Amino acid sequence: MKKISNAKLKIIPLGGLELIGMNITAIEYENSIIVVDCGLSFPEDDMLGIDMVIPDVTYLKENLDKVRGIVITHGHEDHIGALPYILKDVNVPVYATKLTVALIENKLREHNLLQQTKRKIVKHGQSINLGDFRIEFIKTNHSIADASALAIYSPAGIVVHTGDFKVDYTPVFGDAIDLQRFAEIGRKGVLALLCDSTNAERPGFTMSERTVGRTFDNLFAEHKDSRIIIATFASNVDRVQQIINSAYKYGRKVVVEGRSMVTIISTAAELGYIRIPDNTLIDIDQMKNYTNEQMVLITTGSQGESMAALSRMAANIHKKVSILPGDTIIFSSNPIPGNEKAVSKVINELSAKGANVIFQDVHVSGHACQEEIKLIYSLVHPRYAVPVHGEFRHLKAQAILAESLGIEKDHIFILKTGDVLELAQDHGYVTGTVPTGSILVDGLGVGDVGNVVLHDRQHLAEDGIMIVVMTLERGLNQVLAGPEIVSRGFVYVKESVDLMDEARGVVADALEVCLEKNISDWMKIKTVIKDALGGYLWRKTKRRPMILPIIMEAEI
Amino acid sequence: MKKISNAKLKIIPLGGLELIGMNITAIEYENSIIVVDCGLSFPEDDMLGIDMVIPDVTYLKENLDKVRGIVITHGHEDHIGALPYILKDVNVPVYATKLTVALIENKLREHNLLQQTKRKIVKHGQSINLGDFRIEFIKTNHSIADASALAIYSPAGIVVHTGDFKVDYTPVFGDAIDLQRFAEIGRKGVLALLCDSTNAERPGFTMSERTVGRTFDNLFAEHKDSRIIIATFASNVDRVQQIINSAYKYGRKVVVEGRSMVTIISTAAELGYIRIPDNTLIDIDQMKNYTNEQMVLITTGSQGESMAALSRMAANIHKKVSILPGDTIIFSSNPIPGNEKAVSKVINELSAKGANVIFQDVHVSGHACQEEIKLIYSLVHPRYAVPVHGEFRHLKAQAILAESLGIEKDHIFILKTGDVLELAQDHGYVTGTVPTGSILVDGLGVGDVGNVVLHDRQHLAEDGIMIVVMTLERGLNQVLAGPEIVSRGFVYVKESVDLMDEARGVVADALEVCLEKNISDWMKIKTVIKDALGGYLWRKTKRRPMILPIIMEAEI
Repeated sequence: MKKISNAKLKIIPLGGLELIGMNITAIEYENSIIVVDCGLSFPEDDMLGIDMVIPDVTYLKENLDKVRGIVITHGHEDHIGALPYILKDVNVPVYATKLTVALIENKLREHNLLQQTKRKIVKHGQSINLGDFRIEFIKTNHSIADASALAIYSPAGIVVHTGDFKVDYTPVFGDAIDLQRFAEIGRKGVLALLCDSTNAERPGFTMSERTVGRTFDNLFAEHKDSRIIIATFASNVDRVQQIINSAYKYGRKVVVEGRSMVTIISTAAELGYIRIPDNTLIDIDQMKNYTNEQMVLITTGSQGESMAALSRMAANIHKKVSILPGDTIIFSSNPIPGNEKAVSKVINELSAKGANVIFQDVHVSGHACQEEIKLIYSLVHPRYAVPVHGEFRHLKAQAILAESLGIEKDHIFILKTGDVLELAQDHGYVTGTVPTGSILVDGLGVGDVGNVVLHDRQHLAEDGIMIVVMTLERGLNQVLAGPEIVSRGFVYVKESVDLMDEARGVVADALEVCLEKNISDWMKIKTVIKDALGGYLWRKTKRRPMILPIIMEAEI
Repeated sequence: MKKISNAKLKIIPLGGLELIGMNITAIEYENSIIVVDCGLSFPEDDMLGIDMVIPDVTYLKENLDKVRGIVITHGHEDHIGALPYILKDVNVPVYATKLTVALIENKLREHNLLQQTKRKIVKHGQSINLGDFRIEFIKTNHSIADASALAIYSPAGIVVHTGDFKVDYTPVFGDAIDLQRFAEIGRKGVLALLCDSTNAERPGFTMSERTVGRTFDNLFAEHKDSRIIIATFASNVDRVQQIINSAYKYGRKVVVEGRSMVTIISTAAELGYIRIPDNTLIDIDQMKNYTNEQMVLITTGSQGESMAALSRMAANIHKKVSILPGDTIIFSSNPIPGNEKAVSKVINELSAKGANVIFQDVHVSGHACQEEIKLIYSLVHPRYAVPVHGEFRHLKAQAILAESLGIEKDHIFILKTGDVLELAQDHGYVTGTVPTGSILVDGLGVGDVGNVVLHDRQHLAEDGIMIVVMTLERGLNQVLAGPEIVSRGFVYVKESVDLMDEARGVVADALEVCLEKNISDWMKIKTVIKDALGGYLWRKTKRRPMILPIIMEAEI
């Protein structure tokens, strides 16, 4: 590892690459650390029973006196979701735009952290000073309102972090991305650009959010005679605005359904991020006063999440809405990778109930495609490129773009979580790593489920468990009770009586051999039983259930 | 349910819609039943530990004297995979084209059924007589060679079953689909068309397999200086042929890697379905005699299957091939729905090793798109339409196409598994259902894992298990040993000592209360312990592990 004398600015991703979503980056200069975003990740398929994953911020805890604040780019879960957990250990002020702060406050309230957490609303164009840093919030566009890029000024140079962004010249709410400001900062000279890679594999431009509004108008015109149900992302306030606009235009009433949707839309409406014409929004219980063709439902469940409102309607377990033949159901979303089958299941269920399901071309992405990424690079003109947000393949795709734009190959860094990138005007190197990791959250437990427990869950899930219990007399090697066998998740016992009987015999024989040989080491007895029973079951079934011998002792 | 006097032809899907892949249809006329295809399904995400799913053919077993044979359209797993299981109960002759029979024989050999199973090779254009039926095999195109449609002649009329098909005017091997024959049969008058729906949502035409060959040529020309590794479906013999053609053209040696790939390519080569120029194919161990730019590897793993060759290379656990920086790796496939994340994981691992991964536009589908489906309908001109092969949404999409082509709405049937469709010239109705279902195969066990076991596995997977054991003295309500608590998959016990200690206390207290109250009903004691421990754990952790109390008794 090389030592660089003048390299004082450090960029350290504390999450994000290995587990997509855990967006959190420490930026450090001498005695000042700021943290950009604080996201959570949803569990991978093999993380059985886990609710969410949060980053291990040991590095921040160990440098607590340096940490000046957490700066948030926008209010999506993968950028704010871990805040309540991290703030418990790293209680520093949080800075963000108005809607973002409001969404964070909803979270803090749930975790009873509202009182103890300092937070400050920053407007686009404003700056805050945190230690050696000045951080300027720059207006961008994204699939949630009030998204920001950050210009981070330090004595070592300027770092621009785009957050999640797209270039929307005709946004539904507020202004277009402040490209002029990106250009001005670029003129000053930018040390490093941390740019969103999510769509870096896709050529061209992402379409304006406004194009979806035109699609809604067409669909409303086409489907005048049926009820319309539209599923989309709860946080896409502009999308909901456009549905409400079309509904108003076509004289329909709107019901918003699904807990997260209701929460976010109420917050957005309170703060003026969405404008709802009078007498348009009605309560779900008022639906009975209107005919089907007078109604639009906006609902959660666009990803096929099993407990979301639309999925419950599709499965006929929603308390207030039943799908009717002829309903027009629109998925204003694309499936996030991994959700394809769940979405398809819901589409099948809805179609089977006679609904007309529309799921193509009623969505635009919130992320920049290749031409937009190139535009930002050309305006910012950074010395170093650090692609962020995305899987390795996406970061790599941006790295190739950056190279095509003339950035030297050794000035482009695909960082692993924990890598310490030290940057100065004349050189940049990864000089080491800091401890990082993933902490699993299961119910109220934070970090009490680790690899051993996950491995056991996988084993149990695969072939179930067979428990062998017996009671021996203390001192003597005498069986007082058992051995008994109980199984769960292995075979349906009532239909496998012979197998279970034979298994019991195998265990009894193995135990007898141990006792005859005067083996009194319980560990050894357990191993003998495990091997005998495991071997028997493998031969008979080609399965390997977890075998758990439990020996108790009794004194008589 | 209506009784129809002259309706004698019955079409009964015995699998296929609820679980995609289990393609099996009974066609019945008076005392004759024939079975079309006999596929297996891969388990759904919630079928933990299950290897495969096969159809319940109770209906065939109950009508064994009527069953004249099984007719197979092509050699894919979702059309032949369940044969070895079904033949054990329904031992009737199997009819298929040459390559299909060879692939079936590979399976029968594995199950030691080769001797007892009658099978017959049928050529395209030939017919076989089975009871009241005559079945003609018609040449089609698909992503495996030797695919057939079937014209099933019966006294009640002709049924055309397309199997899986596409229209390829310029196939790589053999002839184009026999559209003239479809037309001739259509002229005779066709009662019902059972047509592939897989791509019924996609407009336009599926491209010819041959177009992929041109793509390979371009890629080989572009990547002259690196090793090329290509992943594709093991059974896509034409795809492998085209890779071999490009390899030969560019002077590269070919290694075929992955068990299923090696099996199928050997079978295809023996039967003349693939032509390999001399000195082109080499053994994997000979690779060391050639430079990287002289090599092409064709491998399994295009779906990200964790144990397939490419996935093992990506994870650095393949015994003979390590991924090198600069390798060109081509996915000649699209992810099957549900496999997107697994494929992406492999792409990320390969990219991170410095490989150049190409995964777009190097594949064409084996299934007909909307224009091809319309073509077949126009040639066959059936009285009744029965969309087959696909999820509900796909069948529905074909139903809409059929209606647009002038077929009356009440002549179009989307059948559920088990539905009995009775057809005659003047009317068609679903007149009832027969028993059907899914049988889960886990290791050697066929049907010994049912809903109870699956439910237990899901419970175990979610939150693990907590086992409470104790030994009571027979007759007296006296504790001889325990209660002890053992857990697996719940929390990491060493880091949760307090929780486990308290849990033990909760159980001991609950047991004491039972004994003090002289409760001697073990079921009741178990319930009390379960409730007390379950309540405690939920309050403390918001989790619900399976709680399994085991009481033994001992006589002293």
